[in-house]
Amino acid sequence: MIDVPVALLGYGTVGSAVDRLLEENAEDIERATGHRLRVVRALVRNPAKERPNRPADGVLTTDFAAIRDDPSIALVAEVMGGLEPTGEHVLELLRAGKPVVSANKQLIARRGAELFSAASEAGVQLRFEASVCAAIPVIKILREALVVTNVHRILGIVNGTTNFILTKMEEGAEYAEALAEAQALGYAEADPTEDVSGADAAAKMAILATIAFGSRVTLADVAYDGIERITLEHVRAAHEMQMAVRLIGAATLRDGKLDVRVGPALVDRHHPLAAVEGAFNAVMLQGDAIREITLEGPGAGGMETASAVVADMVSVIGTTGTGFLQNDACWRELEQLPGAEMRSPYYLRIDVDDVAGVLAQVALRLAAHRVSIARLIQHQENGSATLHVVTHEGAEGDLRSALREIESLPETKSPPSALPVISDRGVAELGWA
Amino acid sequence: MIDVPVALLGYGTVGSAVDRLLEENAEDIERATGHRLRVVRALVRNPAKERPNRPADGVLTTDFAAIRDDPSIALVAEVMGGLEPTGEHVLELLRAGKPVVSANKQLIARRGAELFSAASEAGVQLRFEASVCAAIPVIKILREALVVTNVHRILGIVNGTTNFILTKMEEGAEYAEALAEAQALGYAEADPTEDVSGADAAAKMAILATIAFGSRVTLADVAYDGIERITLEHVRAAHEMQMAVRLIGAATLRDGKLDVRVGPALVDRHHPLAAVEGAFNAVMLQGDAIREITLEGPGAGGMETASAVVADMVSVIGTTGTGFLQNDACWRELEQLPGAEMRSPYYLRIDVDDVAGVLAQVALRLAAHRVSIARLIQHQENGSATLHVVTHEGAEGDLRSALREIESLPETKSPPSALPVISDRGVAELGWA
Repeated sequence: MIDVPVALLGYGTVGSAVDRLLEENAEDIERATGHRLRVVRALVRNPAKERPNRPADGVLTTDFAAIRDDPSIALVAEVMGGLEPTGEHVLELLRAGKPVVSANKQLIARRGAELFSAASEAGVQLRFEASVCAAIPVIKILREALVVTNVHRILGIVNGTTNFILTKMEEGAEYAEALAEAQALGYAEADPTEDVSGADAAAKMAILATIAFGSRVTLADVAYDGIERITLEHVRAAHEMQMAVRLIGAATLRDGKLDVRVGPALVDRHHPLAAVEGAFNAVMLQGDAIREITLEGPGAGGMETASAVVADMVSVIGTTGTGFLQNDACWRELEQLPGAEMRSPYYLRIDVDDVAGVLAQVALRLAAHRVSIARLIQHQENGSATLHVVTHEGAEGDLRSALREIESLPETKSPPSALPVISDRGVAELGWA
Repeated sequence: MIDVPVALLGYGTVGSAVDRLLEENAEDIERATGHRLRVVRALVRNPAKERPNRPADGVLTTDFAAIRDDPSIALVAEVMGGLEPTGEHVLELLRAGKPVVSANKQLIARRGAELFSAASEAGVQLRFEASVCAAIPVIKILREALVVTNVHRILGIVNGTTNFILTKMEEGAEYAEALAEAQALGYAEADPTEDVSGADAAAKMAILATIAFGSRVTLADVAYDGIERITLEHVRAAHEMQMAVRLIGAATLRDGKLDVRVGPALVDRHHPLAAVEGAFNAVMLQGDAIREITLEGPGAGGMETASAVVADMVSVIGTTGTGFLQNDACWRELEQLPGAEMRSPYYLRIDVDDVAGVLAQVALRLAAHRVSIARLIQHQENGSATLHVVTHEGAEGDLRSALREIESLPETKSPPSALPVISDRGVAELGWA
């Protein structure tokens, strides 16, 4: 048995859970690695603060240098969150030759380039499983199980809050009502913007795309849209067409170019992502040798996050000195795919006057831009009609042009809305109109 | 770059795909590990045989000793299948200090004890991801991502052939018709017994349970039943009750005892396993820190299997010399849970004479054995009635006793059939009556 002293940056919910998991499962870890991991230091702001799980005396410290400069500390887990001073701490640790495990999505998404380059230079690992989808080991699978698979597409439900809200809406709740329930259950913050706007999902998709495609994708490269404008009517129309509304992150690699985006989409009920309910997350990876693998599980939670942090710590210990995963995952710079060329089937909702010939006008405008109709449902009421249309696959640019013309028809009552449709596995790319 | 000569046992569909993947993705592997893997020897029976992908001259050999005794060979992948001479070859390689990667389900399930003990003694790894569910990295996740999770339950659809047949039956095909289609597509063998009897799934569940629970589970420890007796009527009744028939492998750890079994079950349509269609596999892992993680993907295929073999080879290289995963995963001996105490909700199908009072008689017999009815559908025709009953959770032993009494009622026309029901996630265990 080899004793491995480790340190934590932060000792909150996740940090104390990491400490507990390491202690309670010390024998499991020793069986797997031959080593025993033991928390000897944890950086906190106020060691005197009351804590539900107090570590042993002398573990809590306010002195970062006591961690960085202690040569016996073999590994550090960053579970303090935030960008500053966290980012500088992680950089300094890597430069000092200490492997780091981080649960910090924003840090990895925003400062990945510097951090990974520092890790490469020092020849140590920076692991970050817990930064995306908590306990779902998607980073490990991408980096270790699918090394030779050329993953060219990732479709994910990577935000549990919005998936919970959409599931509640399927059960009949209005958006505001579902959001309030998510807040009451602690799934959504008092200010839910980060989740419902798609920004949180965008940061996660940036990390996943970076790892899968080997090219740096930052938050700024991800076009995202949220669920604020999704109404019960969208959800009901989707249901009527055997589909479900989901907030989908999509990363695509084609012809050496990439596209990463987040937005609501209609998912066919036979698709694995349609079955993801409540606050769960799921990620579908499509690649050459594997066709597709879907991973589903809880995407958040203190214990789930801690479990992923500990798994990363174990993996660092199990690979130290072998040269494994010490290179920056980015090794090339890929251009963006032109958005207008992205192809997808679409769902369109068009409010029109219920007069003869209007359906023909709409179909004509779509056809003129090479968009053909696969399915159509018309709801009529008081002289108005709502057309729910599912198209065959078309280019996003073409669809936009058609929608502009449809919007300007005298019979059209309000700007039409469009959502991409995910039906066949692996066939269609995902465009947003 | 460090050159790593490797050898294959076998050069058939999987072996030649491994060779190709290693060659085509050499740069990806080098980026991940710092090493370049190169096939220098492949053991075959007849080197002169015509092959679609011929390896370089001098690679094919009939001389096993040339692989075992070549000190430059750092790693061997066993992709020849069968039990003999494969088992002896793998044993000799491990004893000679060579790490081995195997895709051989039967070998691992039957001779795991000897093989892992030889690997432990020699201090080398034996990896076997490809032996269960091909490209779905369930072994890696159990051993590396969930080290500290105490996985206490595994529910899996681990046989693609039977899942394909059951999906076809959902679409209206009779069993024989669906089986013939599976055979025509190459999903099922000419003699489909291994698949449809549940034996194949049982071997996979034995491997998964062994790894998850740390106690040796052999094929003989797995009670299994297949899908031969599943009729369109079962499938339709399930559909009518918002459920799907699936062949489920279930491994349970409770109170320090275990139960591993395979058999058909009714799965609620909101459960992730109900959404698994066609020849796909899925495994749900339930544990303390993670709640549950579900992995879905293709469970077979030459390229998918080769991809898992290569991932194992990469992982061996990435962990060599660290002491990682060199112990036998088994470290304790757990007893079997008493089958009669396993609890589950059940689906019952009971054919009775359509006379007054018979339903009351059935309910009375169930209640006398603490089994209560949750839902009931009665189909009547020509003086006969079929009762489709879903019970609340009950003990398998109690249910059996109740069924014996129901069978002996004068109104009961044939032995009632019972299938476990999987509804709530993680709540009910799975018993078979």
